[in-house]
Amino acid sequence: GIAEFDFGRAARRGYPEAVLCEGKTMEHLVAIARAIGERGRSDGGDPLGTILFTRASASQAEAVCAELPGAVHDPVARIVAWPGPVPEPSGGTVLVLCAGTADIPVAREALLTAQHLGRPAELVVDVGVAGLHRILARVDQIAAASAIVVVAGMDGALASVVAGLACAPVIGVPTSVGYGAALDGLAPLLSMLNACAPGVAVVNIDNGYGAGHLAAQIAASA
Amino acid sequence: GIAEFDFGRAARRGYPEAVLCEGKTMEHLVAIARAIGERGRSDGGDPLGTILFTRASASQAEAVCAELPGAVHDPVARIVAWPGPVPEPSGGTVLVLCAGTADIPVAREALLTAQHLGRPAELVVDVGVAGLHRILARVDQIAAASAIVVVAGMDGALASVVAGLACAPVIGVPTSVGYGAALDGLAPLLSMLNACAPGVAVVNIDNGYGAGHLAAQIAASA
Amino acid sequence: GIAEFDFGRAARRGYPEAVLCEGKTMEHLVAIARAIGERGRSDGGDPLGTILFTRASASQAEAVCAELPGAVHDPVARIVAWPGPVPEPSGGTVLVLCAGTADIPVAREALLTAQHLGRPAELVVDVGVAGLHRILARVDQIAAASAIVVVAGMDGALASVVAGLACAPVIGVPTSVGYGAALDGLAPLLSMLNACAPGVAVVNIDNGYGAGHLAAQIAASA
Amino acid sequence: GIAEFDFGRAARRGYPEAVLCEGKTMEHLVAIARAIGERGRSDGGDPLGTILFTRASASQAEAVCAELPGAVHDPVARIVAWPGPVPEPSGGTVLVLCAGTADIPVAREALLTAQHLGRPAELVVDVGVAGLHRILARVDQIAAASAIVVVAGMDGALASVVAGLACAPVIGVPTSVGYGAALDGLAPLLSMLNACAPGVAVVNIDNGYGAGHLAAQIAASA
Amino acid sequence: GIAEFDFGRAARRGYPEAVLCEGKTMEHLVAIARAIGERGRSDGGDPLGTILFTRASASQAEAVCAELPGAVHDPVARIVAWPGPVPEPSGGTVLVLCAGTADIPVAREALLTAQHLGRPAELVVDVGVAGLHRILARVDQIAAASAIVVVAGMDGALASVVAGLACAPVIGVPTSVGYGAALDGLAPLLSMLNACAPGVAVVNIDNGYGAGHLAAQIAASA
Amino acid sequence: GIAEFDFGRAARRGYPEAVLCEGKTMEHLVAIARAIGERGRSDGGDPLGTILFTRASASQAEAVCAELPGAVHDPVARIVAWPGPVPEPSGGTVLVLCAGTADIPVAREALLTAQHLGRPAELVVDVGVAGLHRILARVDQIAAASAIVVVAGMDGALASVVAGLACAPVIGVPTSVGYGAALDGLAPLLSMLNACAPGVAVVNIDNGYGAGHLAAQIAASA
Amino acid sequence: GIAEFDFGRAARRGYPEAVLCEGKTMEHLVAIARAIGERGRSDGGDPLGTILFTRASASQAEAVCAELPGAVHDPVARIVAWPGPVPEPSGGTVLVLCAGTADIPVAREALLTAQHLGRPAELVVDVGVAGLHRILARVDQIAAASAIVVVAGMDGALASVVAGLACAPVIGVPTSVGYGAALDGLAPLLSMLNACAPGVAVVNIDNGYGAGHLAAQIAASA
Amino acid sequence: GIAEFDFGRAARRGYPEAVLCEGKTMEHLVAIARAIGERGRSDGGDPLGTILFTRASASQAEAVCAELPGAVHDPVARIVAWPGPVPEPSGGTVLVLCAGTADIPVAREALLTAQHLGRPAELVVDVGVAGLHRILARVDQIAAASAIVVVAGMDGALASVVAGLACAPVIGVPTSVGYGAALDGLAPLLSMLNACAPGVAVVNIDNGYGAGHLAAQIAASA
Ligand SMILES: Nc1ncnc2c1ncn2[C@@H]1O[C@H](COP(=O)(O)O)[C@@H](O)[C@H]1O
Ligand SMILES: Nc1ncnc2c1ncn2[C@@H]1O[C@H](COP(=O)(O)O)[C@@H](O)[C@H]1O
Ligand SMILES: Nc1ncnc2c1ncn2[C@@H]1O[C@H](COP(=O)(O)O)[C@@H](O)[C@H]1O
Ligand SMILES: Nc1ncnc2c1ncn2[C@@H]1O[C@H](COP(=O)(O)O)[C@@H](O)[C@H]1O
Ligand SMILES: [Mg+2]
Ligand SMILES: [Mg+2]
Ligand SMILES: [Mg+2]
Ligand SMILES: [Mg+2]
Ligand SMILES: [Mg+2]
Ligand SMILES: [Mg+2]
Ligand SMILES: [Mg+2]
Ligand SMILES: [Mg+2]
Repeated sequence: GIAEFDFGRAARRGYPEAVLCEGKTMEHLVAIARAIGERGRSDGGDPLGTILFTRASASQAEAVCAELPGAVHDPVARIVAWPGPVPEPSGGTVLVLCAGTADIPVAREALLTAQHLGRPAELVVDVGVAGLHRILARVDQIAAASAIVVVAGMDGALASVVAGLACAPVIGVPTSVGYGAALDGLAPLLSMLNACAPGVAVVNIDNGYGAGHLAAQIAASA
Repeated sequence: GIAEFDFGRAARRGYPEAVLCEGKTMEHLVAIARAIGERGRSDGGDPLGTILFTRASASQAEAVCAELPGAVHDPVARIVAWPGPVPEPSGGTVLVLCAGTADIPVAREALLTAQHLGRPAELVVDVGVAGLHRILARVDQIAAASAIVVVAGMDGALASVVAGLACAPVIGVPTSVGYGAALDGLAPLLSMLNACAPGVAVVNIDNGYGAGHLAAQIAASA
Repeated sequence: GIAEFDFGRAARRGYPEAVLCEGKTMEHLVAIARAIGERGRSDGGDPLGTILFTRASASQAEAVCAELPGAVHDPVARIVAWPGPVPEPSGGTVLVLCAGTADIPVAREALLTAQHLGRPAELVVDVGVAGLHRILARVDQIAAASAIVVVAGMDGALASVVAGLACAPVIGVPTSVGYGAALDGLAPLLSMLNACAPGVAVVNIDNGYGAGHLAAQIAASA
Repeated sequence: GIAEFDFGRAARRGYPEAVLCEGKTMEHLVAIARAIGERGRSDGGDPLGTILFTRASASQAEAVCAELPGAVHDPVARIVAWPGPVPEPSGGTVLVLCAGTADIPVAREALLTAQHLGRPAELVVDVGVAGLHRILARVDQIAAASAIVVVAGMDGALASVVAGLACAPVIGVPTSVGYGAALDGLAPLLSMLNACAPGVAVVNIDNGYGAGHLAAQIAASA
Repeated sequence: GIAEFDFGRAARRGYPEAVLCEGKTMEHLVAIARAIGERGRSDGGDPLGTILFTRASASQAEAVCAELPGAVHDPVARIVAWPGPVPEPSGGTVLVLCAGTADIPVAREALLTAQHLGRPAELVVDVGVAGLHRILARVDQIAAASAIVVVAGMDGALASVVAGLACAPVIGVPTSVGYGAALDGLAPLLSMLNACAPGVAVVNIDNGYGAGHLAAQIAASA
Repeated sequence: GIAEFDFGRAARRGYPEAVLCEGKTMEHLVAIARAIGERGRSDGGDPLGTILFTRASASQAEAVCAELPGAVHDPVARIVAWPGPVPEPSGGTVLVLCAGTADIPVAREALLTAQHLGRPAELVVDVGVAGLHRILARVDQIAAASAIVVVAGMDGALASVVAGLACAPVIGVPTSVGYGAALDGLAPLLSMLNACAPGVAVVNIDNGYGAGHLAAQIAASA
Repeated sequence: GIAEFDFGRAARRGYPEAVLCEGKTMEHLVAIARAIGERGRSDGGDPLGTILFTRASASQAEAVCAELPGAVHDPVARIVAWPGPVPEPSGGTVLVLCAGTADIPVAREALLTAQHLGRPAELVVDVGVAGLHRILARVDQIAAASAIVVVAGMDGALASVVAGLACAPVIGVPTSVGYGAALDGLAPLLSMLNACAPGVAVVNIDNGYGAGHLAAQIAASA
Repeated sequence: GIAEFDFGRAARRGYPEAVLCEGKTMEHLVAIARAIGERGRSDGGDPLGTILFTRASASQAEAVCAELPGAVHDPVARIVAWPGPVPEPSGGTVLVLCAGTADIPVAREALLTAQHLGRPAELVVDVGVAGLHRILARVDQIAAASAIVVVAGMDGALASVVAGLACAPVIGVPTSVGYGAALDGLAPLLSMLNACAPGVAVVNIDNGYGAGHLAAQIAASA
C-alpha cells in the first residue's frame, strides 16, 4: 500500500481528510483518488462527505477528475472537490478578507474550503492597509461574521487592523506574495504572530485550506 | 501623556484591552494602572470589564495591586486581574492541555485569561506524546470542549496529536521550554504551523494570554 | 590613541558626529568626552555644534556629565547632550509617532535627536493599530509634518498605516519590544521593510538616533 | 471584483498608487489596467497622474501597453508608465548611485520612478568601494543632491561611504546581486541597516521603486 | 584524477563507500562507475560488497547501469545498486515508518539501503499522527524491530510518538515534504531534534541513505 | 496535579522516564521527586529502575537529594541519580569521545546516563581534530566499542572523522562551546548533520542525556 | 556608461580587476569586454595583466571570447582568461585540496586564478575526512605549500584537519555541495569559521576566485 | 585526564597551541596551566614557545598567572602570555586596523597574538568609513604592511575599503559591536564575506586571536 486514507476522520472529527496533492507522484495520487472513489460509492449509509484535493497542479487536477466523475476543479484555488456541489450552508458566516489581488488564490482556497465544509462564506479582496478607507467601509460585514480569515503577504498588517475592529476570531494566513525581505512569507508570518491586537491565530504560509477549515469549525456553532 | 488606553475596546470588540507589563517602566505602568482605576471607578453604567495585566514581574504586580485595591495576582501565570473575582462563566468550555510541567506558567495564563473573559475552563497538565496513554485517557474531555488550547515546547507534537482527535478548534501555543535546537520556542512554533492535522492555528511563543483570549471568543457562542 | 573623533563631520555633513556609548569602556568614553571638551572650548569661531552621547548607561552618563559641565542627560532616551540647551528650531516639523508605551525610550531618542539637530519636533505615543481611532484622530498632525518617524515593535504595522495616510516621508524604527517570535525586533523590521505603502524606509532596530537624524535632514529644507 | 484600486491616493498622499505586476495573473493584471484606463480617460478635471506598473515581465508589459495606448515600457527597469512622458521636473535633484553594473536594473527603476514623480534625477553607475577614486570623483555631484539613492549588493558598503560624505539623506537599496553568503540580498540589507554613518535608511531588497518614491518625496521641497 | 574512491572502507568500517550522484557531472560520474567496475571485477578474494549510487537522476542512473552491467535501478528511491541482488539478510529487523505518501521516496531509500547492507527490512507508509489509530495498530511490529527509521515532513511529530512506544533506537529522517514554514524540512528537523521522548537521533533532511545505513549498523548485532 | 509521571515507561520502553529539571519551579520539582520516592519505595516487586534528574542546578540537585535519600549528584554532569549506585553493566561498551576540555560536562552527562542505563562506558577527552594523532591513538578503543558518542562544539568535525574510522554507530552531540558564528551550537549541529561519512545521527545541542540513552539502547544487544 | 572598469587596480593592488559575469546582461558584459580589449590593445608600455571573467555561463563565455581574440575558456571552472596563456610562475606554491568530486568546479576556479595571477599551483581532489588516509598521504605536499586552499561542502571538516597538519595559511572555501541541512553551503561556511585549529580564514561560498586570489597574494613573497 | 595538550603543535605547525579559557571550569583551566608549566620548565632544549591563554576572564587570568610565574596579562585583550616577554620580531609587518573605539579589545587581541608569534605589529584605531579621510591618511602604512587585519562591527565596510587600497592580504574580523540588526556580529560577518574587493578572508566574530595567528603566518616569509 502507498496510503492509509483516514476514512474515519469525518466520524471522529466532523470533517473528512483532505488530500494534499503537492509532492505526490501522479501514480500515488491516482491510486488514492481511486480508493476514495471506491469507498465513497459503496458508502450508502455512512457518507464520506466532500473530499478536497488541495494544491493540485493542472495535470494532477485533470487526473483526479478523470478518476472521480462529478468532481469539480477550481484552477485559481487549485482545489478539486468530490462530489462537486457545495453543501447547503449552516452555521455562522465565514468572512475572507485579502490585502491584495495577488493573494486571491490563497483567499479563494480558504473560501471554497469553508463552503465545502458547510458554512456560508464571503470573499472581499484588495482591502490592504495602504488605503485604510477600504477596510473601514467593511465594518458592518466584519461585525456580522462569525469567523474571519485575513489573507496578506508583505507586511501582514491587515490582520492586526482587522482584529482591532472585530468581535469574531481572526485567522491570519500569511502569503508568499512579495519579494526580498518578504522571505517567501516569513515576514507576514512573523508580523501576524506578533499582532498587537489579541484574538488572532496564524496558520502556515499560503495555507488557505487550513484557515478555511478552522474558520468552518469556529463558525459551526454560531 | 504616556498612554492612550483603549477604553472603547470592550464595546467595540467584546473584551477590554489588557496591559502588557513587560517592557514598561515602573513609572509608566503605575500611571496606566492609576488611569484605569480612575476610569473604572467612575464608570457606573458602562463597566470596563476585568482588566488583565499580563507578564507582570513580582514587583510590577505589587505596584499594580497597590494602585488597584481588589486586584488579584497569580504569580505562576504572572497575571494581575482587576477587579479580582472571576465572572460567572457562560458559553462552551475551554480546555487547556499542556505537554509538560515546565509549560504550566503559560498554560495557566491561558486558563485564567479564558476564565476572566467569562468562559468555563479546565487545565490538564503533563500529557506529552512521549506517553501517549496520558492524552488518550482524555478523549472524552477533548470531545466535550468548545475550544482547545495546546501548550507545548520542544517538539510541539501534542498539537497535531490533539487536533487529530478533536472536533473543536485547536489553538497551539509553542513555549520556550527546551534548550539548544528548541531555539527559544521556534522549533515548536514551526512544528505547530506545520501540524499534519487541520484545525490548528498558532499564537506567539509563550503567548498564553492570546490563546486564552481567542479560545474565549471561539467558545462564546457554543 | 583610542579614538580619532571626526571633528570635521559638521562642516562636511552639516551635523556633528555622535558618540555611541554602548560597548565602550569607561576609560575610553571619558577620554573621548575629554577630547571633545577640549576641542569644543577652544573652538571660538568654528563651533562643533551639539555633541550627542547615545545609548548611555546611567554610570556612563554620569561620567560624561562630570567631564563636560553644562551637559544634560535624559535617562529615558539614554542621551547626553553637550552643550545642553536645544538650539532654536528651524525647518519643517518632525513628528514622532509610537505604537505603545514600551516604545517610548526609542521614540524619545528620535525626538531629542531631531530637536538637538535643530528641528521643531513632536511626540505622540500609544497610537498602535489595535485601536485605529487613535491614529485617525491625528490625521491633521500627520498632514502638517515634514518628516514622520514611526516607532513600533511587535507587528510593526503602524508604519504601513501611517504611510498610507501621509504625504511626508516615513522613517520606520522597529523596536525590540515584544517577545518570542518578535525575535528582538526582527519581526517589525521585516514588516516595515515590506510596508505595503511606498514612502517608508527603515533604520536599525531601536535606532531612534538614526531616525531622528535622518528626519532632521529631511525636514531641514521644508 | 478582483481589485479595489486606490484612486484617491494621489489626492491623499501626493502620488498615485502603482501596480506591482509580479505575482498577479495575466487576467487580473489586464483587468486592473483596463479599470485604470477607463477612470483615467474619464478624469478630465481631476487627473490621476502617471500610473507606474512595476516589476513587469516582458509579457505583462506587453499586455499593459496593449490596454493603455501611450504607455511606455523600460525593459531594463521593468517599468511601464502611463501616460508615458516624464512630467516637467521640479524640486531638488535625486542622485542614484550604484555599486556595480549588475545593480543597474534596480538603480534604473529608482531613477525612472523619481522622474515620473516629478523630480530631476541622475544615475551614476559602477562606483563601488573597491575602487574608491570612483566615488571620490563624484563629491560635487553628491553635494548638489537633495536626496541620494545608493543601490548595492554583496557588502552594501557603498551606503556607509556615501553617507559619510553627504549632507543629503541617503536611501539604501540592497540588491540580490551576489551569491552564497550574500543570501539573496540579506547581507547588504543588514550591512546598510548597520551603516556606521547616520542619515541612512533602507528599503526592501531590489526595491528601486520604493527608494525612488521616497527620494522624490524628500526632494520635493528642496 | 577526479576521484579517490575509498575502496578500503568495507574492510575498515564493515560497509563500502556509496556514490552520491547529485552534484557530479556526467563525465565524472561515469569515470567513477568505470573505476568501481574495474576494481570490482578484478576483486576475486576481497569483494567490494554492493556499491550504492544514491540520489541518481534518471539519466545518471541510466549511465551508471550502462557502465555496470547487472546493476539495478529503483527510480522511486533514486538508487542504483551494483551488483543488483539484495544479499541474504542477517541480524535484527529494520522497520521503516513513514508519515505520509509523499515521504515514500525517502523511506524507500532507507529501506533499500538497509536491505543492501544485509538486514531484513520492512516499510509501513502513511501512519502520520493525524490518525493515531494507524500507528497504534503497529505496536507489535514496532516491538519486534531492532532499529526503527521514522520518515516525516511537516511537523515531524511521528518520531516522538514512535519513540514513546518503542524499545528500539529510533532514527528520524525529516523530509522536505510540506511548504511555507516547513522551510524545506527545517521544521521537522528541529522538531525531531527536540523529540520529547529520548532514544531518537536525527540525520540530514531527506537522507534516507544515511538512516538506512545507521539502522543496518544498529540491527547488525541484534 | 502538576505532573503525570510516566511510571510505565520502563515496562514499555525498557528504561524509565527521566526528569528534566531545567525550566521547572522548585516547588514543582520537589513535588515530582516526592511522588517518585513514594512510588519507588512502595514498589517491591516492580522496580522503577534508576531515575535520573538531568540539567539540575546546584540548588535543584540539593532539593532532589533532600527528598530522595540515597540519591547521588554529579555536579559536572548536572545529574542526580536515584537510587545512586550504578547498576551492574551488561551489553556492549559505550565509548564517549569529546573534542575539547570545555565539552566535558556534556560528555560526562552521556557517560553517566549510559552507565545508569546498564552499559559499560568509557570517556576519552580532548581528542579534537586540530591534533589528529590524538584520535588516531584511539583506533583500537574505537574498534572495540558497540556505540560511540562524539561530543564536540565549534566545527563539530570530530564526528565525521570518527565515523570514517569506526564500525559502530556514531551519535553526534553538538555542544554550545564556542562563540560568534558557533551560534550557540548551531554550527556543529549543522556540521554533524552533514557528516561526510555515513553512520552518524545527531541529537540536540548539549543533549548528553539523549545521546547516552540512545547509545545504551544500541549497545544493549551487542 | 554602464561600467567604470578599474584599470588602475593592477598598479594599485598588484593584480587587475576581474569581471563577475553572473548577474550581468549580455549587452553589458559585451560592452565591458570591448572596453577592456580596446584599452588592453592600446596599452603598450603599461600592461593590464591577465583579465579574468568569472562565473561565466557557456553563452557568456562565448560572447567574451568573440570580443577578445586569444581568450581561453575553462568550462569546468567557468573562467575566461584574456590573454589566455598562464604567465611564468613565481613565488611559493599554492596547493588546492578538495574534499569531493563535486567540489572540483570551485577548486579548479581557485587553481586557475592562482596560476593566472602568477603562482605555481597544484590540485588534489577527493581527499575528504571520511577516509583520512587520503589526506594523510599528502603531508609532504602540504608541508611544501606556501598557501593552501581547502574546498569542501557538507561538513567542511577538511579545513580543520588540514590546518592541524600545516604550517602554511589555510583558506577555506565552503561549497554549496550537499542538500537539506547543508543549507546551500551555510553549514560548511559556519564549520570553517569555527575551525578548531587556528590559521584558517574563509571566503564566500563557492568563491574559488577569491580564494585563489588571496592564496596568490600570500604565496607571492614566499 | 581532562586535557591532552598538543605539545607537538609548535614542531608540527610552527606555533604552539593556545588555550581558550572561555567555557572551561576554573579547576580544568588550572590543571592545564600546571601541566604546561611542568612541561615548559622541563623543556630545556626543545622550547614550547610562548603559550597564549585567550578570552580569559579576570579571575581566570589571575589563576593562570598564579600557576605560571612570569606570565603577563593584558586585561583589554583578555590574553595571558607565558612566558611574558614578546619575542624579537622577524618577518614582515602585521598592520591591525579597527573601525571604532569599541573594537579595540578584539583588535588588541590580534595585535598581541601577532607579536607573541614573532612579528612586528602595529595598531591603528577608529578609522571607520564614516570619515574616509582617516583611512586615506594611512595609505603609506597600508602599503608597507605584509598582512593586514581589519576589525569592524556594524556594517563591516572597512574590510572592502582597505582591500581596495592594499597589496597585502586582508583578514577581516567581524565584531559583535553594534545592536539590533547587527545580530551580534552576523551583519559584519556577512558583509566581509561578500567584500566587493578580492583579497579578503574572514575569521569568526570577535576572533582576534585567529586573525593575529593567520597574519603572523602570512607575514612570516615576507
Ligand atoms: N501577554 C501579552 N502578549 C501579547 N499581547 C498582549 C499581552 N498582554 C496585552 N497584550 C496586548 O498588547 C497591547 C498592549 O500594548 P501597550 O499599549 O504597550 O500596553 C494591547 O493591545 C493588549 O491587548
Ligand atoms: N545610537 C546610535 N546608533 C547607531 N549609530 C550611532 C549611534 N550613536 C552614534 N552613532 C554613530 O556611531 C559612530 C560612533 O562610533 P565610535 O567611533 O565607536 O564612537 C558615529 O559615526 C556615530 O555617528
Ligand atoms: N536532558 C534532557 N534533554 C532532553 N530531554 C530530557 C532530558 N531529561 C529528560 N528528558 C525528557 O523530557 C521529558 C521530561 O519532561 P517533563 O514532563 O517536563 O519532566 C521526559 O520525557 C524525559 O525523558
Ligand atoms: N580565542 C580563540 N578562538 C578560537 N580558537 C581558539 C582561541 N584560543 C585558542 N583556540 C584554539 O582552540 C583550541 C583549544 O581548545 P581546548 O582544547 O578546549 O583548549 C586550540 O586548538 C586553540 O588553538
Ligand atoms: Mg491593491
Ligand atoms: Mg512530563
Ligand atoms: Mg497601548
Ligand atoms: Mg564594477
Ligand atoms: Mg496521509
Ligand atoms: Mg584541546
Ligand atoms: Mg569522494
Ligand atoms: Mg569612531
